[in-house]
Amino acid sequence: MRGVVEFPENLLPLQARLTQELERVQARFDAHLDSDLPPVSRLCRHVERYRGKMLRPSLTLLCGLAASGNSADVDAALSENHISVAAVCEMVHMATLVHDDVLDEADTRRSGQTVNRLHGNEAAVMLGDLLIASAFRLCATIDAPTALAVGHASVELCEGELLQLHHRDSWSLDEPTYFEIIKRKTAALIAIACQLGAVHSGADPEIARALGDFGRHLGVAFQIQDDLLDLMGKRSTLGKPVHKDLEKGKPTLPIIHHLSVASPRERSRMLDLLDHAAIEMTPGVARQIAEALRSTDSIEHSRRHARSLVARAITELDRISASPARSLLRVMADAVVDRIR
Amino acid sequence: MRGVVEFPENLLPLQARLTQELERVQARFDAHLDSDLPPVSRLCRHVERYRGKMLRPSLTLLCGLAASGNSADVDAALSENHISVAAVCEMVHMATLVHDDVLDEADTRRSGQTVNRLHGNEAAVMLGDLLIASAFRLCATIDAPTALAVGHASVELCEGELLQLHHRDSWSLDEPTYFEIIKRKTAALIAIACQLGAVHSGADPEIARALGDFGRHLGVAFQIQDDLLDLMGKRSTLGKPVHKDLEKGKPTLPIIHHLSVASPRERSRMLDLLDHAAIEMTPGVARQIAEALRSTDSIEHSRRHARSLVARAITELDRISASPARSLLRVMADAVVDRIR
Repeated sequence: MRGVVEFPENLLPLQARLTQELERVQARFDAHLDSDLPPVSRLCRHVERYRGKMLRPSLTLLCGLAASGNSADVDAALSENHISVAAVCEMVHMATLVHDDVLDEADTRRSGQTVNRLHGNEAAVMLGDLLIASAFRLCATIDAPTALAVGHASVELCEGELLQLHHRDSWSLDEPTYFEIIKRKTAALIAIACQLGAVHSGADPEIARALGDFGRHLGVAFQIQDDLLDLMGKRSTLGKPVHKDLEKGKPTLPIIHHLSVASPRERSRMLDLLDHAAIEMTPGVARQIAEALRSTDSIEHSRRHARSLVARAITELDRISASPARSLLRVMADAVVDRIR
Repeated sequence: MRGVVEFPENLLPLQARLTQELERVQARFDAHLDSDLPPVSRLCRHVERYRGKMLRPSLTLLCGLAASGNSADVDAALSENHISVAAVCEMVHMATLVHDDVLDEADTRRSGQTVNRLHGNEAAVMLGDLLIASAFRLCATIDAPTALAVGHASVELCEGELLQLHHRDSWSLDEPTYFEIIKRKTAALIAIACQLGAVHSGADPEIARALGDFGRHLGVAFQIQDDLLDLMGKRSTLGKPVHKDLEKGKPTLPIIHHLSVASPRERSRMLDLLDHAAIEMTPGVARQIAEALRSTDSIEHSRRHARSLVARAITELDRISASPARSLLRVMADAVVDRIR
């Protein structure tokens, strides 16, 4: 979460430790996403440009430290398995980014050009596949239960994406289905990143499950916030285009809430605006949508929901003993919903 | 290989056994590629229509029987692991078909409409990802070494596809690079299907490796033959469009051979024809290309190469004791190069 979270003074030693460990994760990632074929190796290097906050690896490492039962966890050991699990989760995540960009016909990601834009859709599809295959190959070097858990989370992730696709342009989508989608497409992998961090610290199954639940709630909150940023954020701040969800007909929480509470007249006006947005999202349409959403308190409804999920996530942390890592997990959880105000 | 191989009389009991075991593989495939989400489950059912020869599962099962060291192998047991490995290899293969169809913008496959044609590219990309993730999840239920082997073969497969993509429209591609491409994109998975069949029968590592080599040689021969079918075959026989490789700028063995042995004039004429083919492959252009290839014996050169690889594959079978399964593997190997004459 470098650059996103402001670390309290007392957590600075842990932050330094985390930065160091994330470099080990990056090195493992690079070593396992490489090829003896020079053209393939060059393409793999492109993935490095996609590297962002390293949320999932950070969670694996911190959950590993927090679950180690060592209150002086700044010095607790992180095993090779922790580093591998962290790299695996990031690889699976990167694969979804590369494939999402193909699906979304995106030209930019993290202020740089996308793989599909630079090398074509074919290369992007195959590079995403290479990322998935490399993730599973690395995973299998750990142990079969870890491979099974990552496999299961990856299946959920694909199911979530397919369910979302199925409901494209379905503006009558209800909240339970929206939550089902994001629980699978986003929260499943974040949950397993947390849970496996604990498992590889030898934590009791109950503790590992609690940290998994922490990740699941956090993941859902994270996606709600991500959807809010796409709806209300600025391209200049995010480093990627905004309003992609509306252009692609993806109903997100504020829209779903608005349509369910609006008067018939407001509802029909929003559906008109959404039709316009699908054709061309002009600043005028964006402004009118934002105003309509505010008029029904739909933005605040979504933020409240995300905040309550973060609160539930933090409750799960009560099951583990206090430590700097636990404190930092709490700071990170709060940061998820504070990305915009 | 149902419908492809003519079984000699004495192998009919084994054929009946194989058909039965393939039904177990299909049931495992269907059970593990399913979802509790009805729209996702419906999409998964579409993959059933892609089901073809079941080459990889057949090889896993027959190598499993052949390596069991039981000369009365018609009655030898195939473990649950054999069935799972067979299903896993077929899932990985299906994933490449689904993604290939996106890359190739194909409308038909096995005489039916493709996923991308029916449900769009996004659904096809995600369904391919779901197939890969499901394959690895199933794989992880076997054991870590099996998961590692399948992970490694899948990485090779993606590398082969990416190398091929890198050399698209490179008509100066040499034979070693062509073989590197098809060794990875096709032969690696077939090799592991064979090797793991033997491993799960408790075969000595040397025997498992020999059957892996059998699969690798056979896989290269199979791809040469597949490329020949695309070049010289008929849509009506194959159930899919032909000449896709030329339209997509993929150099295959007959073209590579022709360009390397042709006179400067013939060479430049072929390059002109390939330019035409890339824009529109008319029956006239197809005929002229076929004639040119015959004039330099390039079709026969490719067939000879495929046949010699099948012969090498069959030599590997000498390392295992005689059995009906070994005989059937030999019949299947011969059938690979006899798909057209």
